Amino acid sequence: MTKLSWGMIGGGEESQIGGAHRIAAGLDGAFRFAAGALDIDAARGRGFAIRLGAEEDRAYGDWRSMLAGEAARPDRLDLVTVATPNATHYEITKAFLEAGFNVLCEKPMTVTTAEAEEIVATARQAGRLCAVNFGYSGYPLVRQMKAMVAQGDLGRVRLVVAEFAHGFHADAADADNPRVRWRYDPAQAGVSSVLADAGSHALHMACFVTGQQVARVSADFASCIEGRALEDDAALAFRMSGGTVGRLWTSAVAVGRMHGLTLQVFGEKGGLSWAQEQPNQVIWTPLSEPSRILERGSQALAPLAQRGSRLAIGHAEGLYGAFGNLYADLAAAIRAQKAGDIIDLGNHPVPTAEEGLHSVAAIHAAAESARAQGAWVEV
Amino acid sequence: MTKLSWGMIGGGEESQIGGAHRIAAGLDGAFRFAAGALDIDAARGRGFAIRLGAEEDRAYGDWRSMLAGEAARPDRLDLVTVATPNATHYEITKAFLEAGFNVLCEKPMTVTTAEAEEIVATARQAGRLCAVNFGYSGYPLVRQMKAMVAQGDLGRVRLVVAEFAHGFHADAADADNPRVRWRYDPAQAGVSSVLADAGSHALHMACFVTGQQVARVSADFASCIEGRALEDDAALAFRMSGGTVGRLWTSAVAVGRMHGLTLQVFGEKGGLSWAQEQPNQVIWTPLSEPSRILERGSQALAPLAQRGSRLAIGHAEGLYGAFGNLYADLAAAIRAQKAGDIIDLGNHPVPTAEEGLHSVAAIHAAAESARAQGAWVEV
Amino acid sequence: MTKLSWGMIGGGEESQIGGAHRIAAGLDGAFRFAAGALDIDAARGRGFAIRLGAEEDRAYGDWRSMLAGEAARPDRLDLVTVATPNATHYEITKAFLEAGFNVLCEKPMTVTTAEAEEIVATARQAGRLCAVNFGYSGYPLVRQMKAMVAQGDLGRVRLVVAEFAHGFHADAADADNPRVRWRYDPAQAGVSSVLADAGSHALHMACFVTGQQVARVSADFASCIEGRALEDDAALAFRMSGGTVGRLWTSAVAVGRMHGLTLQVFGEKGGLSWAQEQPNQVIWTPLSEPSRILERGSQALAPLAQRGSRLAIGHAEGLYGAFGNLYADLAAAIRAQKAGDIIDLGNHPVPTAEEGLHSVAAIHAAAESARAQGAWVEV
Amino acid sequence: MTKLSWGMIGGGEESQIGGAHRIAAGLDGAFRFAAGALDIDAARGRGFAIRLGAEEDRAYGDWRSMLAGEAARPDRLDLVTVATPNATHYEITKAFLEAGFNVLCEKPMTVTTAEAEEIVATARQAGRLCAVNFGYSGYPLVRQMKAMVAQGDLGRVRLVVAEFAHGFHADAADADNPRVRWRYDPAQAGVSSVLADAGSHALHMACFVTGQQVARVSADFASCIEGRALEDDAALAFRMSGGTVGRLWTSAVAVGRMHGLTLQVFGEKGGLSWAQEQPNQVIWTPLSEPSRILERGSQALAPLAQRGSRLAIGHAEGLYGAFGNLYADLAAAIRAQKAGDIIDLGNHPVPTAEEGLHSVAAIHAAAESARAQGAWVEV
Repeated sequence: MTKLSWGMIGGGEESQIGGAHRIAAGLDGAFRFAAGALDIDAARGRGFAIRLGAEEDRAYGDWRSMLAGEAARPDRLDLVTVATPNATHYEITKAFLEAGFNVLCEKPMTVTTAEAEEIVATARQAGRLCAVNFGYSGYPLVRQMKAMVAQGDLGRVRLVVAEFAHGFHADAADADNPRVRWRYDPAQAGVSSVLADAGSHALHMACFVTGQQVARVSADFASCIEGRALEDDAALAFRMSGGTVGRLWTSAVAVGRMHGLTLQVFGEKGGLSWAQEQPNQVIWTPLSEPSRILERGSQALAPLAQRGSRLAIGHAEGLYGAFGNLYADLAAAIRAQKAGDIIDLGNHPVPTAEEGLHSVAAIHAAAESARAQGAWVEV
Repeated sequence: MTKLSWGMIGGGEESQIGGAHRIAAGLDGAFRFAAGALDIDAARGRGFAIRLGAEEDRAYGDWRSMLAGEAARPDRLDLVTVATPNATHYEITKAFLEAGFNVLCEKPMTVTTAEAEEIVATARQAGRLCAVNFGYSGYPLVRQMKAMVAQGDLGRVRLVVAEFAHGFHADAADADNPRVRWRYDPAQAGVSSVLADAGSHALHMACFVTGQQVARVSADFASCIEGRALEDDAALAFRMSGGTVGRLWTSAVAVGRMHGLTLQVFGEKGGLSWAQEQPNQVIWTPLSEPSRILERGSQALAPLAQRGSRLAIGHAEGLYGAFGNLYADLAAAIRAQKAGDIIDLGNHPVPTAEEGLHSVAAIHAAAESARAQGAWVEV
Repeated sequence: MTKLSWGMIGGGEESQIGGAHRIAAGLDGAFRFAAGALDIDAARGRGFAIRLGAEEDRAYGDWRSMLAGEAARPDRLDLVTVATPNATHYEITKAFLEAGFNVLCEKPMTVTTAEAEEIVATARQAGRLCAVNFGYSGYPLVRQMKAMVAQGDLGRVRLVVAEFAHGFHADAADADNPRVRWRYDPAQAGVSSVLADAGSHALHMACFVTGQQVARVSADFASCIEGRALEDDAALAFRMSGGTVGRLWTSAVAVGRMHGLTLQVFGEKGGLSWAQEQPNQVIWTPLSEPSRILERGSQALAPLAQRGSRLAIGHAEGLYGAFGNLYADLAAAIRAQKAGDIIDLGNHPVPTAEEGLHSVAAIHAAAESARAQGAWVEV
Repeated sequence: MTKLSWGMIGGGEESQIGGAHRIAAGLDGAFRFAAGALDIDAARGRGFAIRLGAEEDRAYGDWRSMLAGEAARPDRLDLVTVATPNATHYEITKAFLEAGFNVLCEKPMTVTTAEAEEIVATARQAGRLCAVNFGYSGYPLVRQMKAMVAQGDLGRVRLVVAEFAHGFHADAADADNPRVRWRYDPAQAGVSSVLADAGSHALHMACFVTGQQVARVSADFASCIEGRALEDDAALAFRMSGGTVGRLWTSAVAVGRMHGLTLQVFGEKGGLSWAQEQPNQVIWTPLSEPSRILERGSQALAPLAQRGSRLAIGHAEGLYGAFGNLYADLAAAIRAQKAGDIIDLGNHPVPTAEEGLHSVAAIHAAAESARAQGAWVEV
């Protein structure tokens, strides 16, 4: 099986997300880094791409020359990852899709809902894959929750409670810190800060696990640090397409919380609880029975969760494995695409452009609700 | 030091809360059970009171005869605990206060806000103590959080996140279970079910620890089980009198959650996190520093927390100790009252009728907001 | 049901253990404090006993006058608790047993094995109850483990791992601290320090839960702080009477460990794990199945565990309840004794003098093994 | 920077450890898989090597032809990983070292101490790197503990407590299961089963973190399942070269324990506690102060721990990262070797052949002590 060829835009040497993509794409040996426009500084980006193994003529200075160069080649990239600043996702993703490339775009997929709709339409028209990096959905036990809901273990899902709380924007002295400041500037961050940045992962996970969408939302945004034009803390009440009640809390000022992404799902027949900081266990409580600790790697898990696991039970398997599962699913889908085969995406649940669109739409609805003093807004 | 004489209305042999009150009142040997009207069944109540040590003529068949009997005695009760069904709290508490007794009332203090205001006024007029049993506020580390906020360790408190989730009303088959059914019947439970029953503890704790009141609230109530006229799940966004942002989630359908009362408090200088199911530790994270685990019984704690602790560090000290601290504070206040002394209630922070009133008012405001689709309502 | 009359020797006003005994004895209202010799300072002890409710002539200045006074009364004490310094347990316990009193003795029951054997013989001869305060055995979930082993849920028990680690004697500067120093002085503490003081609880729990005794032991004692004549850290390998393999670690220099008493039990059909610092849960793992979290207060528990629980599931119930269960069992046994009834001690498993003897014997065997460089010693 | 060329012996398609090595070697892009003899079945091994990217003539059918083939090439492998069955480690490792290759050998490095001494001598004579895969030592917070001990944060280390307990050999029905049976057969597993297999990681970690060796040991081995010729549970007491007291428990019959590798280190000035199943935190308790939770990714960590971390604080980083750190250190050492530079191995603490030798020697000493009824044996 030859390796698939992979390229990246953004994700330069200093970027953390770039390193994570490279590790995830390489994890199973399915992708080979072949081309990149990795840095806003053209020379630095080209140098880094070459050090990563790209041939000289595929180490590009910017995404436009990469698009032109790659589109002209017979050995085109099988997948392009877009890991640039948020505001540029739309333009780059759209251009590559139109040119016939498969794309994995960082989240948020776009800044506006209209743009997101265009991406979805473009991907459909081009017949290309467009995935969005809601990477936490790749954790084996998140997939286990999805499988348990799908196979009816919980009965009707009544309630979902999602959370993403951290405390890394809690220092008022960071007002001028460039790594923090842009996040609270509507010109750069759009209509939402912490909900778009962190809470969107929790919201996606609620949708991913329940198989539903957010139908309507009532939100409260707060700027706990004075002078911030966007929210650093948000609470959402929502209703989902299948009738499930939802609650979400997200914060950037929760000092002591690290990367507090959690999901609880409650149904007629039982409840589930999972936390990103201890991702190798999920707690499953059948109604009126003791809670059970389901371990990653256990043979009791659903096939979807078992396949997503590369280490034996009890080992700590972290984000690389989760993230690698998205690339694994993309590899399977791309191979099927190249072979003209049909693939069951239920078994390869990489987040789609439709999910990226829904996320953008839900964030905008929440922002509108918050401006309207908590009035319920349809998504 | 002679023991104080104590009586109870309600809390009969089968009641759990009655046993907890007796243990708590007896914990430090400050109170002696002297009189009671313990049961709706007069004979059963009288028999139980005698077995608990009451003299024959102070084992009453109902609260009215107890009021008459005790009011006529020279050796009157020092404290009366009211642990009857919610709807009767108002009438009984008011009558005993008017007759000059100190009262500890179970929560909710009353069903309506108007009743609660009357209780507050009555207690003031009578010059008697009226306390409300928000018993979790007696935990040493809850008091530690209060002390840390008060002494400025957190700086300005920006955000408080409170939760009380359990899963014991999640069985749809309980529709006819008399222990569950009345809780969702507005005629018996009033305007709110799970928020009034469970969430009110979390809300009180948010106020107790921050020293603030709920100023306005936006709420979403949901009945996750069909046919329930009151909410079994609620989410509140609120703002407090001192500007603190608040979030609260409470649920009775969260299968797998047991007695999930938690509080997180986030300020300019750090954050605190505490959970009732592991009450002997609180996590304290100073801004930009590692989290610290503060242990009950540690000499690093505030005097208020140290005094509330009867066991050495590391032992599991549970609800009896917490609850006993309310009785200990009442004992101190009653002794001061009898001696004509003034007592610093800041050092004996037993929840007051004013706190009982605020709780009832906040629940009503939340219910009104929920009916008004999340519109913000002033408390 | 009239209250039983109860007295205490030692456990004065400053003592923590005295307060714990008073709370535990009073928890269910079964005992009334009637007499005491509470302090080495006679006047102070008499004053405190009177404040606790003893009549003037039953507030004694020392244990000998208490023995004389109480033995002469028609309304004798139903139970005497001995909470004096360790070296005096033997003499006092023996004297009260011989005079026909029931005794609850603090652990260690005696300093030497010969003394312990005498206590056992004396109790038998006198036909009186002699219990020993291994108070952690009263935790509902410890009793649940005992019940599960007894009813065969684990199959043959292969392995038990017990631990009691704390770090409160880790400060070398405490060499002259009178509260620490005596513990490492063989003249006052006997052949063992941390094993006798802390580890003995873990060892008792291993025996209590498995229903077996320690048959032989290989031990390593270490004095981690220079100049200590007795061990501040010990490791034991042992074999039990029923063939179970045992491991035990105990330490007083484990900085960061608080009151780290834990027990793990592993059998053919599954394993159990419990920790004193989170006493309201036990983890039960059936072979090849997910772990289950058994909650105190759950209806899934054995009757022995259910009866020992006074609060609903999910509340934190701590040491008072556990300790109170020993007094509850003693009350039941004493009432049976007074009525001439037979009582099933399996349902009232208060630790006996025989268990006190076994503990002393096992500690001595371990000390002998440690002196003999780990040679196996029969108990 | 060109990639280093890497080969592997063993670690075929079905092997878990092979996959882990490939992920770890590829994590930072430093190594390129160039050659392999991956399977006992020559054709299968060659096919897999080619699929992994080896050129046809470097996909070998067995290790001897690989040795011959690679030794003859000008573009020799920079590193060879040996992941074959334990009994073959010695012969293969020795042969490759003698031929001038750098080797990373799976643990145990050899079966006998004499063999291990030979490996050490061979590596020295050849001037080649010989590392042993004690992979858990690569966890950033394990390295943090090592750094804290080295810089004196704990003062003199008094006590180390290591544990590795799992329950995956607890089913007596596995007597004929080929995946389990060989582990308890001395002909295949040598003098020890669970200590050599699992406990050796805990023992290595104790040495790695304290910077000491095991000086002497007293051990108890038990076969909890009848018919096993080797131990499935072991307890060790030991003393280290620097005077530290040690305790170790390891088990394969601890049902409910998954991959229970933990380390606790206690010194004059504080204590540390870490557990493999939650590897992103270490608890640090300074003497007489509250415990602190040190998070992977925090800027408060030592440089050695910071460098070993590829994700921001709060993300779950698991075994791949740890394991990848060994390959990263090897890459640095090999690059230095090629450049003729000197490298500070304290900053690249990949476990050495000397550590592999010490591990084998300590296991043999423990086995000898167990046979001698716990007599202390010098290592």
